Amino acid sequence: MSTSSAEPRRGAGTDAAAVRPPIREALVAAAFRLFVERGYEETTVDDIVALAGVGRRSFFRYFPSKEDVVFPDHERCLADMKAFLAAAPEDADPVRRVCDAARLVLRMYAENPEFSVQRYHLTKKVPGLRAYELSVVWRYERALAEYLHARLGGRPDGILHADVIAAAVVAAHNNALRSWLRSRGRDDAGAAVDHALGYAQSVFGDVPVPPRGAVPEDVVVVAARRGTPLWQVVREIETAFARD
Amino acid sequence: MSTSSAEPRRGAGTDAAAVRPPIREALVAAAFRLFVERGYEETTVDDIVALAGVGRRSFFRYFPSKEDVVFPDHERCLADMKAFLAAAPEDADPVRRVCDAARLVLRMYAENPEFSVQRYHLTKKVPGLRAYELSVVWRYERALAEYLHARLGGRPDGILHADVIAAAVVAAHNNALRSWLRSRGRDDAGAAVDHALGYAQSVFGDVPVPPRGAVPEDVVVVAARRGTPLWQVVREIETAFARD
Repeated sequence: MSTSSAEPRRGAGTDAAAVRPPIREALVAAAFRLFVERGYEETTVDDIVALAGVGRRSFFRYFPSKEDVVFPDHERCLADMKAFLAAAPEDADPVRRVCDAARLVLRMYAENPEFSVQRYHLTKKVPGLRAYELSVVWRYERALAEYLHARLGGRPDGILHADVIAAAVVAAHNNALRSWLRSRGRDDAGAAVDHALGYAQSVFGDVPVPPRGAVPEDVVVVAARRGTPLWQVVREIETAFARD
Repeated sequence: MSTSSAEPRRGAGTDAAAVRPPIREALVAAAFRLFVERGYEETTVDDIVALAGVGRRSFFRYFPSKEDVVFPDHERCLADMKAFLAAAPEDADPVRRVCDAARLVLRMYAENPEFSVQRYHLTKKVPGLRAYELSVVWRYERALAEYLHARLGGRPDGILHADVIAAAVVAAHNNALRSWLRSRGRDDAGAAVDHALGYAQSVFGDVPVPPRGAVPEDVVVVAARRGTPLWQVVREIETAFARD
């Protein structure tokens, strides 16, 4: 896992065990049992509430629709992500911060591997759930992009860079998530996501984002093919150092 | 516009004017007139066919659902994109190729600015259309990713890199597309997308992708803060050159 001191943590107020009432848990468990046994389309809300032993109104108190019971934790996770980004120190590296924010999503999946793997197979089979999932992914990406807009918006092409970085981070995260789901939740989710996000950070994170008004670090980069005579490389460095 | 010789062109068989029958055009025109006048939800397929002066069955011959009439050209564009990628020479720069493939989408929008701008405002208002659009964007991204999987899959982390590059290229494209739509189709769409894709290429395109079996170019990169004593930089280069 990341050794960052900015490691995302859930606020006490959104601790899963503390806020999730047993009825909600029972509805999710009943729904998934029926989805796996009978199929998603063949299961009605009435079937779910009958198995959970609660009334129809209880279902709709917790979930706006049947689709929402398939993804019961995304709203909480999205709220956690936004809170984590909002709490970022002003001098936080923005690329690292959005990578750490993305880790919250993988952690949610990894909290319950069996459920996550079941849902992965269900979502692949049901086009409506696939569409739902795409809209969820899009909301995560917008949350990351909005934070980056605020951080990078003041520099030339900042909005473009923010959009591209947010999409790249989400794609890296999802690549790791899919690998982990395909391993049936057996691989190390944290290691997979660290590796994937490490790539995104290596691509975008090396570009220092100067705080407003600061002078960027003055670094000269020289690339030379191995075997180039040393005097030729030295002359190039001298020229680069001398340039204004 | 790009000066690439690999500039994407539509095959003769998919030329828009040649294959699109007048009934299809009439249905799209009638649908949009009603969507703008009455609203999307308030318009039925019966209203559309009545205005277009055709039967209900004609509608469903061209469009599986009411949503599809809002995006009448994406299937054709997606097919063009896949054909363009499949026709790529083996030694094509893969990042450049997916950027050129993405240009096909913007070109489709730019062919009919008024229609594209109307649809942009409609899509923002109707959640169902927004979801439909997300699934279309996802299919474009998968087409780019699949081409990149085939090109980069053989190298370490090739699938990860492919997924991240595809997402970044789509995000850059969409950033340019949104800017152009917000200008009500008045800005230069080609210049906007060239600028945005230029950023994606600068981020990913500098990494040379060796053809399979080839020896990668042997380049040494040294970064030094301006003001570092020259002897120290030279020593670092000597060490790098000597390394196996």
